[in-house]
Amino acid sequence: MEKELITDLSKLLELNKYQELKESIVKYNEVDIAEFLESIDEIEALAIFRLLPKDIAIETFSYLESESQEKLISAMTKAETVELVDHLYIDDMVDLLEEMPTSIVKKIMRNIDHEKRDLINEYLNYPKYSAGSIMTPDIFPIKKENTIQEILNKLRHLDNLNETFYTLYITNEKEELEGFVEIRDILTNAPSTKINEIYNENVIYVDTLTDQEEVAKILEKYQFVAIPVVDQGMKLVGVITFDDAIQVLHEETEEDFSKMAAMSPNEKEYLDTSIFELSKMRFFWLLILMISSTLSQYVINSYGDLLTVFTGLVAFMPMLTDSAGNAGSQASTTIIRGLSIGEIDTSDFLKILFKEFTIALIVGIGLAIVNYIRIMVFRAATPMIALTVSLTLIATIVISKLVGATLPMIATKLKLDPTIMSAPLLTTIVDSVSLVIYFTIAGILL
Amino acid sequence: MEKELITDLSKLLELNKYQELKESIVKYNEVDIAEFLESIDEIEALAIFRLLPKDIAIETFSYLESESQEKLISAMTKAETVELVDHLYIDDMVDLLEEMPTSIVKKIMRNIDHEKRDLINEYLNYPKYSAGSIMTPDIFPIKKENTIQEILNKLRHLDNLNETFYTLYITNEKEELEGFVEIRDILTNAPSTKINEIYNENVIYVDTLTDQEEVAKILEKYQFVAIPVVDQGMKLVGVITFDDAIQVLHEETEEDFSKMAAMSPNEKEYLDTSIFELSKMRFFWLLILMISSTLSQYVINSYGDLLTVFTGLVAFMPMLTDSAGNAGSQASTTIIRGLSIGEIDTSDFLKILFKEFTIALIVGIGLAIVNYIRIMVFRAATPMIALTVSLTLIATIVISKLVGATLPMIATKLKLDPTIMSAPLLTTIVDSVSLVIYFTIAGILL
Repeated sequence: MEKELITDLSKLLELNKYQELKESIVKYNEVDIAEFLESIDEIEALAIFRLLPKDIAIETFSYLESESQEKLISAMTKAETVELVDHLYIDDMVDLLEEMPTSIVKKIMRNIDHEKRDLINEYLNYPKYSAGSIMTPDIFPIKKENTIQEILNKLRHLDNLNETFYTLYITNEKEELEGFVEIRDILTNAPSTKINEIYNENVIYVDTLTDQEEVAKILEKYQFVAIPVVDQGMKLVGVITFDDAIQVLHEETEEDFSKMAAMSPNEKEYLDTSIFELSKMRFFWLLILMISSTLSQYVINSYGDLLTVFTGLVAFMPMLTDSAGNAGSQASTTIIRGLSIGEIDTSDFLKILFKEFTIALIVGIGLAIVNYIRIMVFRAATPMIALTVSLTLIATIVISKLVGATLPMIATKLKLDPTIMSAPLLTTIVDSVSLVIYFTIAGILL
Repeated sequence: MEKELITDLSKLLELNKYQELKESIVKYNEVDIAEFLESIDEIEALAIFRLLPKDIAIETFSYLESESQEKLISAMTKAETVELVDHLYIDDMVDLLEEMPTSIVKKIMRNIDHEKRDLINEYLNYPKYSAGSIMTPDIFPIKKENTIQEILNKLRHLDNLNETFYTLYITNEKEELEGFVEIRDILTNAPSTKINEIYNENVIYVDTLTDQEEVAKILEKYQFVAIPVVDQGMKLVGVITFDDAIQVLHEETEEDFSKMAAMSPNEKEYLDTSIFELSKMRFFWLLILMISSTLSQYVINSYGDLLTVFTGLVAFMPMLTDSAGNAGSQASTTIIRGLSIGEIDTSDFLKILFKEFTIALIVGIGLAIVNYIRIMVFRAATPMIALTVSLTLIATIVISKLVGATLPMIATKLKLDPTIMSAPLLTTIVDSVSLVIYFTIAGILL
């Protein structure tokens, strides 16, 4: 879809066919138009942006990356900026202001009316990642006494009806949330029906301070198009729609992936992030992992004599520590994900530990058999060393899985982030323990 | 929310207050009712299920896990089963049939009408994970000649209006997709307006064979509530709504997490999966990883003499291979995620390689300095060994990051899954290479 659009429109642009470009660009979705504008030179982008009908221009603007928004705004005249910003939804406007340099923020804030400025300031006061900071205040509250016909009449005269109207929320005279009706109830009941007769008072809501991840999970669970947001006094102040929730879930996933690979989370695109920033994000965790993995150095040194006599033991160390690490991270990832999506609870601890123990025993014995056969077939070591390695494999896989399952549970109990906590500790413990087991078994058998 | 509900309702149940239970349960969302039914004894669950008003019962049923659905159905009378299944949405019905044992499927199929049976068979023919298999065929196509008033009249007489009506799709006399209007356009224009005057012909659609992940990405990108599905002849056959897309994105994320931890993906909940199944999923990957990590065994054996003379070298091996592995997986995770969400493309290869090289140099030198100081302060080894270890650290981190960035790119070019491909190869290459570098530098310096 996009590649085609970009090629088609770029050709018209090269030929300076602005009239044709103007006619064909409006046929595309605003998401695609935004992508096209970002693919071309910024002076041309501004020229084309000016050609767009007002409503399309405003929506396209809200889909641009913040850097592109900034470039466009700094090239606009004062009148253009005011016109544009004034028509953005409040939440898009706040997003914009949070990303822009102070000079542009000042330019914008000077030029919008008092009422909007107050609303923006209120928004900027909500904690980051709270429901308040992502909601839209463009709501259309209705009263119990309204009839369907009255509501249809009112809706007909609203000019910016966005997706928040799929569910209509009912408030009392104090603006407190009292219930909801879905737009389908409005459409399928007789015009003379009163809201009173059809509304549902069991409304699921969040408050302005609810964490955005929690909000997204509720929307996902109930498959709602939108969820209402109330303040501390139950006053209806906004709505969060499913598209914001998808965005939040997406960001949280990215964050989890980063943490699993031992990096600080990054909200920017890879190619847009500077080398210095990327290095910083990675250095910290590598340093912790490096320092923690030196524990195994002390283990090895304390068995120095054994290794001097049986030098053949050294060759199997990487395979043993690798297998232990992999087995442990299988368990820890499963448990971390289970905890984070609510599939399992810390109260299931003993049940999980037993399950992991049995799995580890089955997997460990299987691997040990394969390993013993392999060493013997390729004559890689003496039968006694092969036996030592295989027995170690079973023991370390059992211990690694138990440690891998336990760490995220402890972290959760201590209210620490299990994803961040588990990786370095897991490596440290599992490496050292597997070497201790290895050398102990070797000491007995050899 | 749920915990409260479960406690409240369970109390009423214990006291056998069925009338009160009946009155209070209907106030909850069907998702919560389903959760409650799953938390109690199955005989009681069926009793309560029978108390529910028909529409609530049907929706609640669709939110139950398939095992609970199966239990309920096998306990129901024939008449009840027919009544229930007949009122499910076609896609929920198909989901149900796919999960049920044959005996129950037969019981159901015998009792529904011809038309529905044909539709179900058509569904069962769509490839797994295709748009066809997740769409709902309950569509409400309109004609260009319709007026808004006509549409409002028709909508008022539909009995199961689901979320698919937020966008109305226009078809011609051949039932081919021709455009769309949003329900907000219907509500904000005069009743006498013809669809002709307000519809949008640039409709974004998918076909029945489009992969479900692709569908979810399109819905996410455009922030649509729904997307139409056409067959190979452009005939409108169904609609996929945002809640299905969220479900798909969720599953894909789970899959990626599993692969990153070297496990086969699992669609079931952890506690519901048998030990045997879990062992199978994990064994395969541990086996591949174990076998591939034995390459380092040959590396170590070929430097046997060196290790016999300088036994102190062995102690630093785990730290070096661990750091190499961690540095490599930071790079590979970043690149895999970037590729999968479309942030980066294989054509960016050289740019990425250069970026990773520079990052690795910065991070590697930083770590090497810390490491050298640490060894000297704790007198863990001779200055020459400390130097050897530190120089190796720089070289291996550079190589690990380059390998980590390259492997996913190659896998993508070869149309292989980079997530599955990269982990075992990365460990093998990075372990062996870091040991070769270590022993080579040691050979020169010592």
